Amino acid sequence: MLTLNLDPNKPQPIYMQIYQYIKNEILLHHLTPGTKLPSKRSLATQLGISTITVEGAYGQLVSEGYIYARLKSGYFVSPVENYRQSMNFFDQQQINNNNPQKKNTSPDWEDNIPQQDTQKNSELKDSPIAPAPHRVDLSSNSLLAENFPFSTWSRLLRHTINEKQQLLLTQSPTAGVAPLRQAIANHLRHFRGMDISPEQIVIGAGTEYLYELLIKLIGRDKIYCVEDPGYQKLRRIYRDNGACCIALPIDQQGMSVTALNTVSCDVIHISPSHHFPTGIITPISRRYELLGWAAAGPRYIIEDDYDTEFRLVGRPIPSLFSIDMSNKVIYMNTFSKSLASTIRISYMVLPKPLMEEFNNKLNYLSCTVSTFEQYTLAEFINQGYFERHINRMRNNYKKLRQQLLKALTSHPDHERIKILQQSSGLYFLLQIDTSLSDRDLQARLRQKGLMLQPLQHYYQNRQAAPEHTFVVNYSSIASTDIHQIVDALFSSLV
Amino acid sequence: MLTLNLDPNKPQPIYMQIYQYIKNEILLHHLTPGTKLPSKRSLATQLGISTITVEGAYGQLVSEGYIYARLKSGYFVSPVENYRQSMNFFDQQQINNNNPQKKNTSPDWEDNIPQQDTQKNSELKDSPIAPAPHRVDLSSNSLLAENFPFSTWSRLLRHTINEKQQLLLTQSPTAGVAPLRQAIANHLRHFRGMDISPEQIVIGAGTEYLYELLIKLIGRDKIYCVEDPGYQKLRRIYRDNGACCIALPIDQQGMSVTALNTVSCDVIHISPSHHFPTGIITPISRRYELLGWAAAGPRYIIEDDYDTEFRLVGRPIPSLFSIDMSNKVIYMNTFSKSLASTIRISYMVLPKPLMEEFNNKLNYLSCTVSTFEQYTLAEFINQGYFERHINRMRNNYKKLRQQLLKALTSHPDHERIKILQQSSGLYFLLQIDTSLSDRDLQARLRQKGLMLQPLQHYYQNRQAAPEHTFVVNYSSIASTDIHQIVDALFSSLV
Repeated sequence: MLTLNLDPNKPQPIYMQIYQYIKNEILLHHLTPGTKLPSKRSLATQLGISTITVEGAYGQLVSEGYIYARLKSGYFVSPVENYRQSMNFFDQQQINNNNPQKKNTSPDWEDNIPQQDTQKNSELKDSPIAPAPHRVDLSSNSLLAENFPFSTWSRLLRHTINEKQQLLLTQSPTAGVAPLRQAIANHLRHFRGMDISPEQIVIGAGTEYLYELLIKLIGRDKIYCVEDPGYQKLRRIYRDNGACCIALPIDQQGMSVTALNTVSCDVIHISPSHHFPTGIITPISRRYELLGWAAAGPRYIIEDDYDTEFRLVGRPIPSLFSIDMSNKVIYMNTFSKSLASTIRISYMVLPKPLMEEFNNKLNYLSCTVSTFEQYTLAEFINQGYFERHINRMRNNYKKLRQQLLKALTSHPDHERIKILQQSSGLYFLLQIDTSLSDRDLQARLRQKGLMLQPLQHYYQNRQAAPEHTFVVNYSSIASTDIHQIVDALFSSLV
Repeated sequence: MLTLNLDPNKPQPIYMQIYQYIKNEILLHHLTPGTKLPSKRSLATQLGISTITVEGAYGQLVSEGYIYARLKSGYFVSPVENYRQSMNFFDQQQINNNNPQKKNTSPDWEDNIPQQDTQKNSELKDSPIAPAPHRVDLSSNSLLAENFPFSTWSRLLRHTINEKQQLLLTQSPTAGVAPLRQAIANHLRHFRGMDISPEQIVIGAGTEYLYELLIKLIGRDKIYCVEDPGYQKLRRIYRDNGACCIALPIDQQGMSVTALNTVSCDVIHISPSHHFPTGIITPISRRYELLGWAAAGPRYIIEDDYDTEFRLVGRPIPSLFSIDMSNKVIYMNTFSKSLASTIRISYMVLPKPLMEEFNNKLNYLSCTVSTFEQYTLAEFINQGYFERHINRMRNNYKKLRQQLLKALTSHPDHERIKILQQSSGLYFLLQIDTSLSDRDLQARLRQKGLMLQPLQHYYQNRQAAPEHTFVVNYSSIASTDIHQIVDALFSSLV
């Protein structure tokens, strides 16, 4: 009999805990080759969980070669050589893959890579026997896996494969298949009040890829300005594509024409509806100023509307694209946050003249998204599942946010913190009254299992960054962890 | 009762013929809104086909809004406004998408775009009422849709979604998920005799995307040489990515060091195992010379092994990658030809030091292939379906090739043609004894419904191209069309 203790409070889901336990037992030779494992049903009964969960764990162990199935006999521990050979590589990647147990829902260009790397390395050293420490990651936004509509998606995929065999094998136009572009146009009309034609939409495997298309379209010789603070990754993409990229300081309203006039710039890449990480919403007057700037030359504005579906409070803000009369704005959005970052689908909307140029210049390229997923996503949107999914997730996040804010503000030491930019989105800023440096505080928090990124981290010009301010990405936490998070936070201040 | 005549000899599959017929009847108002269509079963019986085929046609009409289903009542013609609004856009794309009824299986960089465009435009004018003329396209290689293993793929996808929910939502490493890289490494070992580690593999959404990664990795400031003749598209990709690209004339053995010594070049991009379109196989002595060239400086060779699975005759040739001891060769291949070009999965194998550089420099990028399809493909390979599929397809092609060659060489006028490079792959060269210019002959052939590309088309330096030689990509033809193709060809010579 396997004696394992499941802990629903761990960030690891139950099936991974089972998988990890059995794998360790095998690696420690507590379970020897040929040993029969309990049947899925009996283990499920013993642990008081569903057989599907056990199936998930066993399936993973089979696919990694640790155990094998014999028809009508059950599961058995494999001979050592079945998994020994590939172990290093797999262990490294599986542990790295499995432990976070969540999908990244931050903008595609979120630069949380260095932290992940550290994590990967340290876990690699511990692996495979030491269990991962309980850790809460507030440094990047993630959606919990349990929220993905697997059964609907699976059904629509099956239906698509049954119904559209010819279409599925027909090459997609560079910009994507018509039904998905139509579905996105309808979604934008309904959800964002944008009146666009599906022919203006370009679909690609992630926003990073779309940026690269844009650089090809607009020109590698142009100067691109991004926001400071903002994502380091974004600057890196422009630079790695051979384009000049300047990080321009923003003010209280976002990017300003005053700042723009200090540099020579052709294209600005901004998120006026909800700036990350400051949460700034660029007011309408500033938006018109920026449009004026763009209209005054051969210039473009890339409007990154990355978390529009999850603006939790406040009235909807019209997109820059909607109020642009000069064909200067490129609208960009993604299904990474609203559906799953691992299904690589993002899209952009080009002004009509630029779309024409796109069709002339770049129609020789293949679309990077599989037709199977393009048609499935089209059905997912058309049949109303996308809207339902967004609504459900928004409610979840709203509740989570309220619980976390309440716990923070009702703590006895609550006067030492201040919540900023709490009105919107999947993160907020936390100003802390402390004599510790950001670095020291971050280290202390990490010791308590709390991963938190200081606002400074997102500044190119670190001197300009306010101190003692941290970005709290709360979307991946479990509500059962809130108490522990708040305790860890305040006890680090002492 | 619908009175339609199905023609199995048409390039359009049966379900599309039904779809097209009903759509035309609706657009011509022969079928008016509210009209009940025959049940799937009764139409299938009437036409002597399976209900699944009718289902395909009805499904397509439903998804485009021409008809709608009422539970337990059947299918009805929609009100006009249901489809009128989106008709232009859809018709354009659907007709463009549906008519070829095949997937492109030429190298990802095959430059058949201009031709497709012409086709699109002319069809757009004809559409939606005029039926497409019967046309046989030998200008690019394609796989017939009926050959895709839909049911296996669908089953594996469902299984993947059931078993790997957590993994599916966990961000893929930049280079791809471990199980797929492991499966590809096994495939290459077994099929190509290549001894590589899965850590050297990078997966991406098509070879075009992988070329872009390579340019980022090796440098935009480097000089890249491609083969002349070769694919214009390839040159365009390098140039659109801001890299200098030279088309270097090849000799009877492929790219030569003599030619390379006339230019300054850092990276060569070649297909030594089977050059397109000449079919040249670079002999081992020349391969070592090229490796010698690469070893003499900070240089690389990109080895494009695009149709290795479909070399139909002759002994397998070891890849350049296998005999390279200096870490200079980048091996590149794709599932576009061997599985489907619309599931966007290609891969490359980097020498270990370059892979290390890749991990350092580019690991901030997201992998462009959906995890859903990565894990499904891994299972498809691991469970032996990929090998079986390749074997089946290879046999199909072999038979088709033999039939076509036999029909050509047994024609009364067979002395006017000569088959070149018939030993391998999904195409061969046809030398024609004619006084017509290539352009005139091509136009004549086109009038008879035969799309054929002269060898000249692939030359940057047209003067160097042999005249009266055409590239015959036969993989998408139906064996029932062979007689007609051969007749059309010879009658154009008169």
